[in-house]
Amino acid sequence: MKNSIGRDIPENIAKDKRLYEGEFSMDSTIAKASPVIKSVHPGQGKLVDNLEEAIVKCGLKDGMTISFHHHFREGDYILNMVIEVIAKLGIRNLTLASSSLSVVHKPLIKFIKDGVISKITTSGLRGTLAEEISKGLMDDPVIIRSHGGRARAIEAGDIKIDVAFLGAASSDEYGNASGSRGSANCGSLGYGKIDALYADKVVIITDCLVDFPNAPASILQTNVDYVVKVDKIGDPAGIASGATRYTKNPKELLMAEYANKVIVGSGYFKDGFSFQTGTGGATLAVSRFLRNEMIKSNIKANFALGGITKQIVEMHEEGLIKHIFDVQGFDLAAVESIDKNPMHHEIDSSFYANPHNKGCIANKLDVVVLSALEIDTDFNVNVMTGSDGVLRGASGGHCDTAACAKLTIIISPLIRGRIPCIVDSVNTVITPGDSVDVLVTEIGIAINPKREDLIQRFSKVDIPIFTIQELKDKIERIVGIPDKIEYDDKVVAIVEYRDGSIIDVVRKIK
Amino acid sequence: MKNSIGRDIPENIAKDKRLYEGEFSMDSTIAKASPVIKSVHPGQGKLVDNLEEAIVKCGLKDGMTISFHHHFREGDYILNMVIEVIAKLGIRNLTLASSSLSVVHKPLIKFIKDGVISKITTSGLRGTLAEEISKGLMDDPVIIRSHGGRARAIEAGDIKIDVAFLGAASSDEYGNASGSRGSANCGSLGYGKIDALYADKVVIITDCLVDFPNAPASILQTNVDYVVKVDKIGDPAGIASGATRYTKNPKELLMAEYANKVIVGSGYFKDGFSFQTGTGGATLAVSRFLRNEMIKSNIKANFALGGITKQIVEMHEEGLIKHIFDVQGFDLAAVESIDKNPMHHEIDSSFYANPHNKGCIANKLDVVVLSALEIDTDFNVNVMTGSDGVLRGASGGHCDTAACAKLTIIISPLIRGRIPCIVDSVNTVITPGDSVDVLVTEIGIAINPKREDLIQRFSKVDIPIFTIQELKDKIERIVGIPDKIEYDDKVVAIVEYRDGSIIDVVRKIK
Repeated sequence: MKNSIGRDIPENIAKDKRLYEGEFSMDSTIAKASPVIKSVHPGQGKLVDNLEEAIVKCGLKDGMTISFHHHFREGDYILNMVIEVIAKLGIRNLTLASSSLSVVHKPLIKFIKDGVISKITTSGLRGTLAEEISKGLMDDPVIIRSHGGRARAIEAGDIKIDVAFLGAASSDEYGNASGSRGSANCGSLGYGKIDALYADKVVIITDCLVDFPNAPASILQTNVDYVVKVDKIGDPAGIASGATRYTKNPKELLMAEYANKVIVGSGYFKDGFSFQTGTGGATLAVSRFLRNEMIKSNIKANFALGGITKQIVEMHEEGLIKHIFDVQGFDLAAVESIDKNPMHHEIDSSFYANPHNKGCIANKLDVVVLSALEIDTDFNVNVMTGSDGVLRGASGGHCDTAACAKLTIIISPLIRGRIPCIVDSVNTVITPGDSVDVLVTEIGIAINPKREDLIQRFSKVDIPIFTIQELKDKIERIVGIPDKIEYDDKVVAIVEYRDGSIIDVVRKIK
Repeated sequence: MKNSIGRDIPENIAKDKRLYEGEFSMDSTIAKASPVIKSVHPGQGKLVDNLEEAIVKCGLKDGMTISFHHHFREGDYILNMVIEVIAKLGIRNLTLASSSLSVVHKPLIKFIKDGVISKITTSGLRGTLAEEISKGLMDDPVIIRSHGGRARAIEAGDIKIDVAFLGAASSDEYGNASGSRGSANCGSLGYGKIDALYADKVVIITDCLVDFPNAPASILQTNVDYVVKVDKIGDPAGIASGATRYTKNPKELLMAEYANKVIVGSGYFKDGFSFQTGTGGATLAVSRFLRNEMIKSNIKANFALGGITKQIVEMHEEGLIKHIFDVQGFDLAAVESIDKNPMHHEIDSSFYANPHNKGCIANKLDVVVLSALEIDTDFNVNVMTGSDGVLRGASGGHCDTAACAKLTIIISPLIRGRIPCIVDSVNTVITPGDSVDVLVTEIGIAINPKREDLIQRFSKVDIPIFTIQELKDKIERIVGIPDKIEYDDKVVAIVEYRDGSIIDVVRKIK
């Protein structure tokens, strides 16, 4: 069966799910899910001796769903630690609903083989774990969800979390937990907050117990069952490791300059505008160009959104950005700022980008600048699988912000190594072409034909403009057309669009 | 039928509900309720022209439940305004689930007679409306709930709000609403926050539309359907009208001094303790004595809780109280402080005192000082009906904090006018005697016999100690025993304990 953008979805998968039909095709009424909880009386404590005790007290059983957040990124010790204890307790057949998974979660391979984990939903998959899954490690396909889509799935009950194991830089013994005030600080706990609201049982894991009340807290005592103190929750170096240094790569700088020109010339660049930029070399550099342009034109941004970096914090502190809405801090500057700047607001992933609440803040985005592994001539974007068809990325907030922003800019070089980045059809669609307005490359831009207004507008702007087909032809003249990847029939991952419909699947590589 | 404290509950009421069996007798697992919502896409606006349009767009129909918060207290314009429009639209038979009702809501009498409002649940009832209800205005009894009990009822689905009409001092057009930054500021929106989370439809009503994003916000855009701008939401003089001036009444000062001695001598007065005091003359004065004692003994409080007053704000600002948890601001000082002091935290009513979440902050209270209209020889407290049996008070957080605090002090004069305040059996039980530890009067204190530890401890403290029976006998020697109030059989109000069980009923006066 094919969905509305022509991606082939096997019948056995399509039969239980809706297929993607367009960015905002689903316009229904949603009954929010809710947890089943046990009340805590005065005098009852929540502090338990170790993870094992917490797991047992939560009543974790075979077949249940457990969740984690990914705010500690490559520095995360929590997930491996918890699953090791679960495995020792002989609990099996769990669904792992992590907000994302990183290279550091390689030990999961063993726990999958041993039957401890049998299903996974995540935003990202990287490293050896991702490779093994691409080779067919799991019987059930992984479900890839965007950050907004995961919040939607939790609020709709598609993901029903039995026990959430949430790492916190600091917590008091009653479960008021924060991403700050500890030794392994991560700033915003935006992805964990939603788990705390909807999980039946919530365990806070920290290496820094502080006096009651740990306020302000990201996760409140009213949603926490147990608190566990461990030796170390993570490696600070791996937590704030976002690639946030400015690039010196001339190709990236050129793309950033073009992207900046696109923003400035788009009509959306005016006082009170809002934007989100990613963490890649070129997208990071965009904020530098944008900053200069804002100072020159005396334009101030109303808010910046997303994963937050030092560049955004600096612009906030010099008065160029009024509000920061932070679902995730990428570096130390972001981590420090959220605890000290009153207009640097922590938000949860539903407020960030859930398409099925009463209006996420992504809805209010003017401009988003995103990267791509591949983009095709229909402007569909792949940020999930490499040119070899192997899982190695994250859905993140890509399709969420692309769908919502008035201007969605994708930055991509024409080729990486000798691999074309503009193709006839991407390996995996994360963001549909309908959400993309402008592609920026090192030789110029391509505007989505549906944006006739922008085509007209940019006819007067000093940037080389091509059709996307022209860009693709240029690449093919240089590197030719690569061989097709050979896939098996087996589906190793299902890509959910943010509304829960299936936009694509990832097949096993041969 | 009689409940566990011997209150007589008519069978037709008892048959559908649990009867009160003790403070923490209910220890069950609760499935949280949740709203049915409609998603809002990018570009969709929420601002409507007027209340009528908002009501129609919300699909309000006969028999539904509407809610309001009472943060504007006697200055509230919202409730009367909205119900007038509803009445004009011909909608009838509604349940009114207001967090409380005040003297200013007298116009409800007409709407009840006209059949627009047929059921009410509230914490308080005052003025002519209360009198009329006591005389049998309504067919269905009003359900009186404590602040924690209302949050519980909403989270448990006992109150299912179809449309919440929530006044806000300021809001942006997307529904980010605050009790600050307007012309009719009320500070914390603690009671309204919970409605916004659980109502199917949420309408923000403001007279001060501000630029997007109105952040930080008490109520978030993700929970709001419509925003209406009206001319005036309330009278600032009536909003911050809490009785927060220090008393000069010698009897009240004497009681405050005794209460302070009780706190200091109780063993709970130590560095890091926590407390809540009310707004009555004597209870307010307690904080003054307490302040002096804290300075003298170099003791600092960890947190103060509750409805917040100038006295608490001042102690916070001079470093005597580390954190303020504020569900409701009683005066201008509280309203201003919450917007500027980072450790003055806004909390919702569930975090405040809901007995059925995973641990409300009232659970962490060391000391609470509360007032009483009457207290009986079993230490049961009435704050709801006058000596004539007429409704004229509010349940508030009385039974919530009394149940939770380690030391619950009730302050009451022996007599008011010629009416005894200590009786054999109170007209209406709001707080069961099991929750009360010490009664403070102007001639000395009475300690609940179950607190043998306190009886022993206070044997060495310089305060006159009596049994409560002795105090009652003293009163009767002065004013005699008043005639019993004559009641009808008809029940005009059901008093729910915080856990949802029936602790008492109020009958129609003859």
